[in-house]
Amino acid sequence: MAEKLVKEITSMDEDFAKWYTDICKKAELIEYSSVKGCMVVRPYGYAIWENIQKILDARFKQTGHENVCMPMFIPESLLNKEKEHVEGFAPEVAWVTHGGDEKLEERLCVRPTSETLFCEHYSNIIHSYRDLPKLYNQWVSVVRWEKTTRPFLRSREFLWQEGHTIHQTAEEAIAETERMLNLYADFCRENLAMPVIKGQKTESDKFAGAVSTYAIEALMHDGKALQAGTSHYFGDGFAKAFDIQFSDRDNVRRYPHQTSWGVSTRLIGAIIMAHGDDSGLVLPPDVAPIQAVIIPVAAHKPGVTEKAVQIDGILKDSFRVKLDLSDNSPGWKFSEYEMKGVPVRIEIGPRDIEKGGCVIATRHDGQKTFVPFEGLEQAVKDALRRVHDGMYDKALDNLNRHTYSCTDMQDITRTLEQNGDGFVKAPWCGSEECEDKVKEQTGVGSRCISLTDSPSETDRCVCCGKHAEHIVYWGKAY
Amino acid sequence: MAEKLVKEITSMDEDFAKWYTDICKKAELIEYSSVKGCMVVRPYGYAIWENIQKILDARFKQTGHENVCMPMFIPESLLNKEKEHVEGFAPEVAWVTHGGDEKLEERLCVRPTSETLFCEHYSNIIHSYRDLPKLYNQWVSVVRWEKTTRPFLRSREFLWQEGHTIHQTAEEAIAETERMLNLYADFCRENLAMPVIKGQKTESDKFAGAVSTYAIEALMHDGKALQAGTSHYFGDGFAKAFDIQFSDRDNVRRYPHQTSWGVSTRLIGAIIMAHGDDSGLVLPPDVAPIQAVIIPVAAHKPGVTEKAVQIDGILKDSFRVKLDLSDNSPGWKFSEYEMKGVPVRIEIGPRDIEKGGCVIATRHDGQKTFVPFEGLEQAVKDALRRVHDGMYDKALDNLNRHTYSCTDMQDITRTLEQNGDGFVKAPWCGSEECEDKVKEQTGVGSRCISLTDSPSETDRCVCCGKHAEHIVYWGKAY
Repeated sequence: MAEKLVKEITSMDEDFAKWYTDICKKAELIEYSSVKGCMVVRPYGYAIWENIQKILDARFKQTGHENVCMPMFIPESLLNKEKEHVEGFAPEVAWVTHGGDEKLEERLCVRPTSETLFCEHYSNIIHSYRDLPKLYNQWVSVVRWEKTTRPFLRSREFLWQEGHTIHQTAEEAIAETERMLNLYADFCRENLAMPVIKGQKTESDKFAGAVSTYAIEALMHDGKALQAGTSHYFGDGFAKAFDIQFSDRDNVRRYPHQTSWGVSTRLIGAIIMAHGDDSGLVLPPDVAPIQAVIIPVAAHKPGVTEKAVQIDGILKDSFRVKLDLSDNSPGWKFSEYEMKGVPVRIEIGPRDIEKGGCVIATRHDGQKTFVPFEGLEQAVKDALRRVHDGMYDKALDNLNRHTYSCTDMQDITRTLEQNGDGFVKAPWCGSEECEDKVKEQTGVGSRCISLTDSPSETDRCVCCGKHAEHIVYWGKAY
Repeated sequence: MAEKLVKEITSMDEDFAKWYTDICKKAELIEYSSVKGCMVVRPYGYAIWENIQKILDARFKQTGHENVCMPMFIPESLLNKEKEHVEGFAPEVAWVTHGGDEKLEERLCVRPTSETLFCEHYSNIIHSYRDLPKLYNQWVSVVRWEKTTRPFLRSREFLWQEGHTIHQTAEEAIAETERMLNLYADFCRENLAMPVIKGQKTESDKFAGAVSTYAIEALMHDGKALQAGTSHYFGDGFAKAFDIQFSDRDNVRRYPHQTSWGVSTRLIGAIIMAHGDDSGLVLPPDVAPIQAVIIPVAAHKPGVTEKAVQIDGILKDSFRVKLDLSDNSPGWKFSEYEMKGVPVRIEIGPRDIEKGGCVIATRHDGQKTFVPFEGLEQAVKDALRRVHDGMYDKALDNLNRHTYSCTDMQDITRTLEQNGDGFVKAPWCGSEECEDKVKEQTGVGSRCISLTDSPSETDRCVCCGKHAEHIVYWGKAY
């Protein structure tokens, strides 16, 4: 039975896409429904999202943000107010045309994102510099009518948070954009054990209506990049389109400056593809619904179940623990919780008990350690820390090994052929023509402009050979 | 300025409806938007909802429930599967007909409630008795295309939680329905300081598709009843309509039994109208975004601000505290936080400091007490408990004074004329004809059938004078 369970997951090398959907289904993260392109997020998947929410929400509140909730509908005339924004989003929105039997006077779209709603609200509540800044966030779902969908990565409805802030000055808004990008990157590293590249999007890849868009990009096991979060600086473009003005200290009317930023359930897709293996999920301890599973071995032997129950009682105040007393075999249970990515497994058998302890196995590396009961709580704490660090190191190593510096197009093609997909780090002149050409000829698109590396005097555009303006991370993307 | 602020709220007696919307707007709970019938829930209003969520979610998890998330759309054919259900909801749903520029093959409604989605999901994941029960809940928003709307009480979109459970037996499902009704009533009493009547809805007032519907009903300051939460027992009707079956221990295929239950942001409306007064909101301490506000008096005097900051530092680990150091006058601040319903105000002035303490004022009764700094934390804790208890007693007294026992129709009319609106407790024969007649002739409709009182041998229907089957709470309702 245990073997059968494991066999049901396609191996990564055989078919990465199938491996991914197998995990989504078999680890009971999602289920499909008759609503095309949407998914049911099941308890185990939703619990991951709840843990992500809890950590991020605390971070947002620490940085002075407040939660609000806007309507889910946007009247067509409101969506139309900012030209670039509507052009970017109108082709992929769901339209409500009827309420009950009656046709609506004006059709409403289901929010694909809520800039327009926030702007309308700001125009109602912002009058003076005393009303600024507003640091708002909302946890909601949004809808984008995608043609091709995949669980967590691209679905017609997805859960996310969208931060929307408005400030007196451009400097303040730019600082906020950067602060939230850094917060996302820190969260990925510290809580998801996931290294990310922080960068700026090129003009062609910006958010519709933004002055500049920043993103964090993570590398998946198959060498593809995944955009895991974005942070946008809007300047005063939206303020002008929506006529949001405030009186400054000198009583002069000014336009405020805005930002928005978001991460979504896509992060769960990133966790699966950055950490998972052929046995299933590998979950970062901070967001794992079950941090440690307790499995009695030879539970029918005297004292085993009692000891397992006792340990559960000791650990459950400090960790998210599950004690599995079901009548499935230990082997079956081992496979089941491996597939579900539980970071730490605690095995308790008669022989362990005799020796005054139990065995701790860590999911990311399969290591087993005998641990005396005395000090078990600390040992679990240490194991979880070890799992987190080990997972991060492994992901970082993968990122480093699959980040290649290239100097021309042939170099890109050859490097990817030899080493497999990954990030190509290469100089770029800044022209859209070259950007398109690189993608056309090598298959990798610009993911982001490096925020830390600048081209040297001698660096030349990887495409046209002219003076390089930026160092760009190129890659195939989800 | 302080006076002006207070004057801006219409008094309850003058115009209760206007008093209500004044509070919603001036206490910054909501703001209107161009999306007709929907509202923006502002930070202060949303923080109340977050506190409600936190307490209820913990209670749900304690009772073994898991959170999930279903799609927000329901295909028309899926909504149509249960006849009574679709008849109840179809007239008030919003229809999505287009995705981008393309007309959808089948139109989708925005969920007005999610029974049909849960049923489809159950039919996919439930096979054997081992898969039961499923105790699910989701925190989402739903849409009902209401003609007349009011903030929190009736809006086209509202935030809520919907619990959906499925069980092997009818007994188990009925017990769950009752358990959740009791949980809601306990929550209202223990956390919202609000007494409620628990009862069963009559046939004409049942949820579309339910075998029986239970509700908690609260009494507002104007004597009207507000349905604050519902819990439904479905029997196996939905299971049959959606072909959900499981193999029991004897390998016989059976239909499982279901429930659903929910409370919404309507609870915030209930809090406003059950506890508020002419100075504004009065918030129950457990859900108040700010539990204690610290206001320095004569803040320019040496040592005052320092002491206020020090107290803030001491209290903020235990309570949701706000220190207001803005340059508004103390009087203005007093009014502001009274309007916002902050349960406890801590005033610190030079004379208080000389005496080694500060003044604690409680919102619900306006009482002021001098408290030594030493032991302030305990004093605040006690004050919050006093506010909760005082609020509950006041609301219970209001409920008791406005619950009238009546024996015939004339008695109802006369009692309401003399004492004002409230609950009329009166026997009923069980016929829909009498139910309608009572409403027509006296203005009060059946709110719920009492779960604790049964008619005596001699009790006669308040309308037709025949044998009484039930004791019913009648009232005007929101």
